[in-house]
Amino acid sequence: MYFELFSQMKKQLGQLGKWLDTAAAHAKAKPFDPNLYLNFRLAPDQLPFVRQVQIGCDAVKLAASRLSGKPAPSHPDTEQTLEELSARVRSTVEYLDTFTAKDFESAAGRVISHPRWEGKVMSGADYFLENAVPNFYFHLTTAYALLRHNGVNLGKADYLGSLSLRAP
Amino acid sequence: MYFELFSQMKKQLGQLGKWLDTAAAHAKAKPFDPNLYLNFRLAPDQLPFVRQVQIGCDAVKLAASRLSGKPAPSHPDTEQTLEELSARVRSTVEYLDTFTAKDFESAAGRVISHPRWEGKVMSGADYFLENAVPNFYFHLTTAYALLRHNGVNLGKADYLGSLSLRAP
Repeated sequence: MYFELFSQMKKQLGQLGKWLDTAAAHAKAKPFDPNLYLNFRLAPDQLPFVRQVQIGCDAVKLAASRLSGKPAPSHPDTEQTLEELSARVRSTVEYLDTFTAKDFESAAGRVISHPRWEGKVMSGADYFLENAVPNFYFHLTTAYALLRHNGVNLGKADYLGSLSLRAP
Repeated sequence: MYFELFSQMKKQLGQLGKWLDTAAAHAKAKPFDPNLYLNFRLAPDQLPFVRQVQIGCDAVKLAASRLSGKPAPSHPDTEQTLEELSARVRSTVEYLDTFTAKDFESAAGRVISHPRWEGKVMSGADYFLENAVPNFYFHLTTAYALLRHNGVNLGKADYLGSLSLRAP
């Protein structure tokens, strides 16, 4: 289910790209500087919008790289405009586009290390479920909440994207 | 990976229970009425905290039921206090405690219907990945964001819970 979950996260990163477009249009209509979004926070000791988007992108990018062994493109977290943030999202989606199910065949058994784990490791399976997927959704939803809190007109359908519905 | 993902969501529901305890302690320390949390919102047209918790619980409860065929306990959304909301979370965790991996053996191929899908259906696999998991994390993280926005002292470790770290 690795590839399927990565495909789902990729789809939702595409939705994030659309939210940024909606946010830009909202700023233009009010009007206010669209780059103001980057520093909005829900609490003074919470990371700002720009970091939520960057970390959300990296959560899925680095997970795909660690679980496949395929090098990830570098993103030095230098975005200073909403447009640059959109480009960051697109670049992450393009990297995820390069994967197939075969890339994750040995994902579960890999040994994953992380700068924050003080020398300890996790299995690929544990890392994916306990860290990568929850972290991705955390930052994605926090970015969504920040836009909603600041008046951007988004709803649950914008979060989920299209569903594979069919006739019964 | 169904059972593993449900186990992860159950673990994070347990974390949500702890956030409610932290929120109660914060209200007591300030002091303010802890039941005020239930009606907090991040935007006037967003569902309040009580609904975020109820829907988050139901996202995982109903998914487990639909994907296993095992009847779910009824929760009529009548919670009016933070304590009742904690009991709702505990009750959902208790229901999830009754599952084993075997319960989800035929999950992927099930045909899932939903009141909001206007007569259309999804496969169990599509429903789980495109709807149930993202919805659960959406409402869990929105509940977290609401507490953070209102001064409750939580961090990423409270969101993720304990990790299966081991020596290399």
